[in-house]
Amino acid sequence: MARWEPDAAARLERAALQLFVERGYQNVTVVEIAEQAGLTKATFFRHYADKRAVLFGGEEMLSSLLAEAVADAPDGATPLAMVGAALCAVGTAFTDERRELATLRAQAVAQDAGLQERMAYKRTVLAEAIERALRARGTAEPVALVAAQLGVLAFQAGYLRWAVTPDQGYGPLAVDALAELAAATESLGVAQSTSTAEPVTLRRQSNT
Amino acid sequence: MARWEPDAAARLERAALQLFVERGYQNVTVVEIAEQAGLTKATFFRHYADKRAVLFGGEEMLSSLLAEAVADAPDGATPLAMVGAALCAVGTAFTDERRELATLRAQAVAQDAGLQERMAYKRTVLAEAIERALRARGTAEPVALVAAQLGVLAFQAGYLRWAVTPDQGYGPLAVDALAELAAATESLGVAQSTSTAEPVTLRRQSNT
Repeated sequence: MARWEPDAAARLERAALQLFVERGYQNVTVVEIAEQAGLTKATFFRHYADKRAVLFGGEEMLSSLLAEAVADAPDGATPLAMVGAALCAVGTAFTDERRELATLRAQAVAQDAGLQERMAYKRTVLAEAIERALRARGTAEPVALVAAQLGVLAFQAGYLRWAVTPDQGYGPLAVDALAELAAATESLGVAQSTSTAEPVTLRRQSNT
Repeated sequence: MARWEPDAAARLERAALQLFVERGYQNVTVVEIAEQAGLTKATFFRHYADKRAVLFGGEEMLSSLLAEAVADAPDGATPLAMVGAALCAVGTAFTDERRELATLRAQAVAQDAGLQERMAYKRTVLAEAIERALRARGTAEPVALVAAQLGVLAFQAGYLRWAVTPDQGYGPLAVDALAELAAATESLGVAQSTSTAEPVTLRRQSNT
């Protein structure tokens, strides 16, 4: 039971998502997840810090994939092309084996207010990772902010499409979504500018 | 003590923010907030459902102000002009008396991971309110999504500027930020489009 299980993390994840959906995230214990997966509690804690980490443990990896792809994009790439490259890089994490878990994950999160808050925070984390990487490539602040936000919208739209499109990889779907969002910026029109205040900072804060 | 206090809500809010910053949100009780404000626990609960509502109770009001202003914008207004009108409408809530609380609020949120998650969710809620209102005015989905995101970025940037600009109203500062973000969209460049997949939906979900 307590021996090394090569696919333990995946089995625990599947068991956890199934239980979250069936009984509600709050009502499921780590012991029950381990039992459902046919593994021990100790094995669970070798793979996940807690129940939440089953759902959000991949956040750091996604942030890294996004940031590294922006850093590695060719010289002269536009901000949006760098974001597109970042979305394609994320595709390596969204394998076919993971596709069927996407629906379970969405259902589990939709049932719990706290998980929805955490999910909103994940979007902030990913946007900040993209934004920082773009700034490091010399992208001006407001451009980096907007490109990062479009990137996160495309990240989500791509995920949604990928979850229901069995024979396509994640990257192209997300990049298509990004292109559609970028095209939409041409129909925004103008804001009614009312003053000529000194530009201060546009940096996103977690506190308004 | 238990009589009607005309400024009880404001006194409780100030007391709560001060205590949150001094001692940490998790370590402060409703009883302590009421004591600090010179009021009773019962008075607290007449104004706020719980400790969290002191920080996020205004979310519904902000959503309504944003949505109503979009609904009331003149015929033929561009999506961005409607968002600008929405930001100006929010200015009625951000009075001079509230300005000095902005810094305390930011500090309290910055100290607590759970509050930062809740704050990220607030941005989602506000973006969805703007997006729905734009869609109701006939704005196409991807345009509404992008305009709503720019609106929330401008909402935050405007708040940040307003907190440190004693002699200016919130609205013009937020609209300036919106105009700068809109201008930034011209420097985004193109995304690398990689396929011609059928456009499905771009709708934001709380579950990716």
